Amino acid sequence: MTRSFMKCDKCGGLAVIGMPEHRLNLCADHFLEWVPTMVQRTIERHALLTPQERVLVAVSGGKDSLSLWDILTRLGYQTAGVYINLGITHEGYSDVSEERARAFADAHGLALQVIHLRETYGQGIPELTAARRRDRPCSLCGQVKRHLMNRAAYEGGYAAIATGHNLDDEAAILLQNTLHWQAHYLRRQAPLLPEAHPRLARKVKPLVYLYEREVAAYALVRGLDFVEDECPYAVDAKTIFYKGLLNQLEERSRGAKQAFYREFLRAKEEGLFGADPDAVTSAEEYATCARCGQPTMAGELCAFCRLWEERP
Amino acid sequence: MTRSFMKCDKCGGLAVIGMPEHRLNLCADHFLEWVPTMVQRTIERHALLTPQERVLVAVSGGKDSLSLWDILTRLGYQTAGVYINLGITHEGYSDVSEERARAFADAHGLALQVIHLRETYGQGIPELTAARRRDRPCSLCGQVKRHLMNRAAYEGGYAAIATGHNLDDEAAILLQNTLHWQAHYLRRQAPLLPEAHPRLARKVKPLVYLYEREVAAYALVRGLDFVEDECPYAVDAKTIFYKGLLNQLEERSRGAKQAFYREFLRAKEEGLFGADPDAVTSAEEYATCARCGQPTMAGELCAFCRLWEERP
Repeated sequence: MTRSFMKCDKCGGLAVIGMPEHRLNLCADHFLEWVPTMVQRTIERHALLTPQERVLVAVSGGKDSLSLWDILTRLGYQTAGVYINLGITHEGYSDVSEERARAFADAHGLALQVIHLRETYGQGIPELTAARRRDRPCSLCGQVKRHLMNRAAYEGGYAAIATGHNLDDEAAILLQNTLHWQAHYLRRQAPLLPEAHPRLARKVKPLVYLYEREVAAYALVRGLDFVEDECPYAVDAKTIFYKGLLNQLEERSRGAKQAFYREFLRAKEEGLFGADPDAVTSAEEYATCARCGQPTMAGELCAFCRLWEERP
Repeated sequence: MTRSFMKCDKCGGLAVIGMPEHRLNLCADHFLEWVPTMVQRTIERHALLTPQERVLVAVSGGKDSLSLWDILTRLGYQTAGVYINLGITHEGYSDVSEERARAFADAHGLALQVIHLRETYGQGIPELTAARRRDRPCSLCGQVKRHLMNRAAYEGGYAAIATGHNLDDEAAILLQNTLHWQAHYLRRQAPLLPEAHPRLARKVKPLVYLYEREVAAYALVRGLDFVEDECPYAVDAKTIFYKGLLNQLEERSRGAKQAFYREFLRAKEEGLFGADPDAVTSAEEYATCARCGQPTMAGELCAFCRLWEERP
């Protein structure tokens, strides 16, 4: 089989990536230039961030979050990272990831805050999952990360938390929300989730319009040293199944995945989902957790602090 | 490998079908009793029909429409059939289908109106598709069928047109509408589409909660003589691709297909899609086609009558 070489659409040099959904082939230099331009466009279109704001990047050590941090920094945003060591010991997952996050921060002279779950709270995700008698850690882990992230952003005075969700992630989440017609989640799913309370920072997802393979290519071409393994608990996660369905769709109809997500945002802007009766929780509706001071709907202690209580 | 025999959950006899999504195994007699009960429940829940109304069943000669006609008749509804011979000659598709429809009507002493597209209008779907320079006949064919069905219902004084769409059909259509976030179609997709004009009858789909395999089993166990072939033009239709995706979903999570459709209707009832600005076209907004007298939004001639005009 003959392998024909692609040319860069900007300079005619050897292309390193073909992006048929954008009708664009690019060489290494122009690809490294193009990706941040796309991200900047997303940031402006959805008013995610301004250069005057400080943003906390949620770093996992994977390709998405390290690319995000790299791109935001290059675009001139004021970034710092936060890494949550969840204490996942399978093949040293959490410690290896931490090392990658630290190496990136050091190499770029950026600040990285590390929160070590087991050292700080006595249990990592595996023990916590067993103690709370959960079959799978994923929802617990999400809860832990959200809480710690919000606290880190508040305590550090950051305007926003940025996460590395890419188009494939968002489309899979959207498919999942759609298959169950979860109105609340459908109404909230967006590149920007506004600040609901002074202690619950704005959440932004600047990579939502980039395909996973584009982000992976960016990390590789930029030479970022990232953790390639998925979280060991994610192996048979639903999200991976939904990504598989969407990949079949994309294969049949180029650009379908992107259309699914973009059209969703368009339909929402055009009012498809009407007004959300529960959309705006005003800051006054929250109580304050007696232990950590974070806002809570759950009673005297917030859901995170209750995790560490003995079971009744 | 040992094949264990299933017992009927009602009488302990030999089950002919296992329906894990309903946690129900049934013998032939109880299955033939159960299916119409399910359909009756759908009719009542969505107020599709009353026994006082005359309903026109859109008959294709396939398992779904013949089962529908059989069930509605057994439930005591006042039915007649309409068969549209589309002039599809591949393996005699349209003529064989017509024969099956006629045989069913004759065997049950039911009235069947046959409209022969080529004999009446000079062209069948294949010639029409070529003449209108369409790549695929499907949307044209749908338009032709809708028009002729509406006219037949109006001229015969029927209160409603019933079609044999099953759960797999509806879920596939829903997935398609969802992947493109087509607000108008999402708001209209339902077991009942109300009468928009005295000449545009109510459309009802009494089989929407039955899986395709349940309807097929009903046709087989009841001994209906139906056309097994799909329409030759449907072979690589999108709907079949979407059904494949949904089958993977169902295989991974039993009942997921049903949940997707049922939760959609629930979310819609709960107001997820808000009010449709274009939902209600009042009868006065329509013009009247100068040729056929049917209501139209398209100008002097309705879209159907324009099909037979020479191209400009």
